[in-house]
Amino acid sequence: MAGDLDELAAALPEGRVVTDPDVVGAYSRDHAEAVAPPGQARCLVSARDAGEVAATVSWASRHGVPVVPRGGGTGLAGGAAAVDGCVILSLAQMNAIREVDPADELAVAEAGVLNADLDRAAAAHGLMYAPDPSSYEISTIGGNLATNAGGLRCVKYGVTRDAVLGLEVVLANGRVVRTGRRTVKGVAGYDLTSLFVGSEGTLGVITSATLRLRPRPAESPATLAASFPSFAAAARAVTAILQARLQPSLLELLDRVTLRAIDDWKHLGFGDSQALLIAQADTDDGARRAAVMQRICTEHGALLADVSDSEAQARQLLDIRRLAGLATERLGAILVEDVCVPRSRLPDMIERIEGAADRHGVLIATVAHGGDGNLHPVFVFDHQPEVPASVWAAADEVFRAALDLGGTLTGEHGVGVIKRRWLAAELGEDAMAVHRAIKGALDPAGIMNPGKGF
Amino acid sequence: MAGDLDELAAALPEGRVVTDPDVVGAYSRDHAEAVAPPGQARCLVSARDAGEVAATVSWASRHGVPVVPRGGGTGLAGGAAAVDGCVILSLAQMNAIREVDPADELAVAEAGVLNADLDRAAAAHGLMYAPDPSSYEISTIGGNLATNAGGLRCVKYGVTRDAVLGLEVVLANGRVVRTGRRTVKGVAGYDLTSLFVGSEGTLGVITSATLRLRPRPAESPATLAASFPSFAAAARAVTAILQARLQPSLLELLDRVTLRAIDDWKHLGFGDSQALLIAQADTDDGARRAAVMQRICTEHGALLADVSDSEAQARQLLDIRRLAGLATERLGAILVEDVCVPRSRLPDMIERIEGAADRHGVLIATVAHGGDGNLHPVFVFDHQPEVPASVWAAADEVFRAALDLGGTLTGEHGVGVIKRRWLAAELGEDAMAVHRAIKGALDPAGIMNPGKGF
Repeated sequence: MAGDLDELAAALPEGRVVTDPDVVGAYSRDHAEAVAPPGQARCLVSARDAGEVAATVSWASRHGVPVVPRGGGTGLAGGAAAVDGCVILSLAQMNAIREVDPADELAVAEAGVLNADLDRAAAAHGLMYAPDPSSYEISTIGGNLATNAGGLRCVKYGVTRDAVLGLEVVLANGRVVRTGRRTVKGVAGYDLTSLFVGSEGTLGVITSATLRLRPRPAESPATLAASFPSFAAAARAVTAILQARLQPSLLELLDRVTLRAIDDWKHLGFGDSQALLIAQADTDDGARRAAVMQRICTEHGALLADVSDSEAQARQLLDIRRLAGLATERLGAILVEDVCVPRSRLPDMIERIEGAADRHGVLIATVAHGGDGNLHPVFVFDHQPEVPASVWAAADEVFRAALDLGGTLTGEHGVGVIKRRWLAAELGEDAMAVHRAIKGALDPAGIMNPGKGF
Repeated sequence: MAGDLDELAAALPEGRVVTDPDVVGAYSRDHAEAVAPPGQARCLVSARDAGEVAATVSWASRHGVPVVPRGGGTGLAGGAAAVDGCVILSLAQMNAIREVDPADELAVAEAGVLNADLDRAAAAHGLMYAPDPSSYEISTIGGNLATNAGGLRCVKYGVTRDAVLGLEVVLANGRVVRTGRRTVKGVAGYDLTSLFVGSEGTLGVITSATLRLRPRPAESPATLAASFPSFAAAARAVTAILQARLQPSLLELLDRVTLRAIDDWKHLGFGDSQALLIAQADTDDGARRAAVMQRICTEHGALLADVSDSEAQARQLLDIRRLAGLATERLGAILVEDVCVPRSRLPDMIERIEGAADRHGVLIATVAHGGDGNLHPVFVFDHQPEVPASVWAAADEVFRAALDLGGTLTGEHGVGVIKRRWLAAELGEDAMAVHRAIKGALDPAGIMNPGKGF
């Protein structure tokens, strides 16, 4: 058999190669399994350092074995789903924060460090690690890098790529390469760092990263919560807030279906709202900015618009936002999407999503990082072996609407397995050819996370 | 003869191909000609649109003719110097600002647009194009993109790459490709945008860009000017200001040699200063921040430290900073360098530069974007056909010191011709191999700006 596991086991410390079907099965899935069912992996390797990653990839390269890297398995596009015959390469045990340097405002973290752990380590020095995907307590830095994860704060502080200075990456040939630098500027050579970020494990395995930290803003930013008679009205308020250039540090939207799902579960009293907008301003004059946002909401028809500087209330509102995903999962099987449009097109995109839901008779619960024009329409359906055709038809309509409005298929989750069939429609054939050339140059045998991303 | 110019001329509108030796000679140089003398080009093409760029590159590709793209010719590393037998492809005539979209805070600009023109167009909508290299009145967006240019504001607002959403690029095969998007987030496919930015024309020719604009801060930020008894003391004040997390929007340093050169020319009365620090804070509470910076300067031995909110005074100080390059050029031939170190190592790097100047008996005038740890040591020597060995020896020491301190050869000027021999020392052999693979994949014949950058 190609790819003798004994040879792999001999190249690694005792016990690293796991073939127990239950364990391998558990590591074969990510959070998109309802729509991207995993293949049959041949083994799991839980690496402890870059050398073990290199030994595993090197073995895979010699034998033409697919490598599927993974972190916390929280991906929503199937990027970490096992493929038949692959070795699953878990980075979750590589979870050391090697360094926090408050003078140069940077940290060096292994791929398996949880996002929130890094942020807490930074907080001890009055700093923050800005990218904060909703999964921050359970998703890893490596996975965040592989998908260029966003989050709630990125409306002000940018996405994962904006927080990366350099990487350590194991290439498809098993060599360990360092990209980038510890300085805030630099243009020596190509930007390999940005190339690997968001490449979903298809060009190499990120084993550690040098990450930029930022001064931590006030712990009690001014927080606004506003309830609207329609999702479209809330979206228009978001657009107006952005155009007033108030630079909110958070600007989130929840639709009626999401609010009802949260209320059915947690009984928080939001069940009758048609749409909820949550905004924060974390500058010293945050209260003033929040007051202006409040006025804009009222002008746009808000039924209620409250500003608070209470940390407890802010935390409660953010918890509601973060419950959205789990609450929606209680409704059935889900396909979580991630379209992003130019910010001024947010109201149009919402209209298109509502139209697709109506036309195809599909339940869609939408939350949005409104300030980024990044929407997560969640398609809900009954648990069943295959995704219903009506769901794919509605999703197709949503994807094409996003492209039509000048947007993208994916703002922060990655292409994974789910969005591959639409990718050429976004990128165009010439850009696809460039992708193939780069993939061919860095992974000529095509072993790195095949069938994912590009 | 390979590459018949009649065939090229036939593929372009009348008059586009210029062979007049005086004109071709004038377009063969950039601002580094004293240290990177140009080769003998065969012709100049001043393209008016992407189609003409594509026709030119396509012709060059068929005949294996080197293509040297250029914008304003203000490069300081020889990146736009002609090579023997090349076609010089000027983008300077492609200078339309196609769009300024205040709602989505973006602009679409052709490669030949001058940086300052774009910023003025943005200002009309209360926005700014943040990257502001000192050459901003004469350098083009295309050149800024090719070198990932920085500037004075990037201590707060980031470098050119941070301001780019998408590109239009003519590839080495003559195909026109679009990268990126109009949205603020997106992870569909590889980050080709970042790959082309800073690639110094070696992977393709950038013909236009979708650029992010930002809310324009107050026109009269609080400005601090502080004079120090030594450059090292000023550098320590910079480090302290950064560690106080005051987020200045500008933090510039000028050394004694630079100040004297400016004073000999303009008689501004700075001739006796050993070092000058200029800082700005452009937030609403800028005056408070500037006052804290003032106190820090005094604590670090400043002889004078004045804060002003006068726009005239701010403009005068920035003019002094921007005169530095021209003033130093009056001293002789120059080699302008561009090392960048982690910000906390700024005082160490200054000590190393002063040591190299002493040891090799070379006059070095240094200015620094202090807040970024980015220093421009300018090596001054008598005009002569060859750069003196002592200058290269001192430069070698400076480059190796930057790497030794965890820094990079180039913060914002690019590798060009000048820094190629040190590049492997910074990147390492494995990363160099990745560069070769990518270059080979996108430019297999090696026609795109050969001998430059990577």
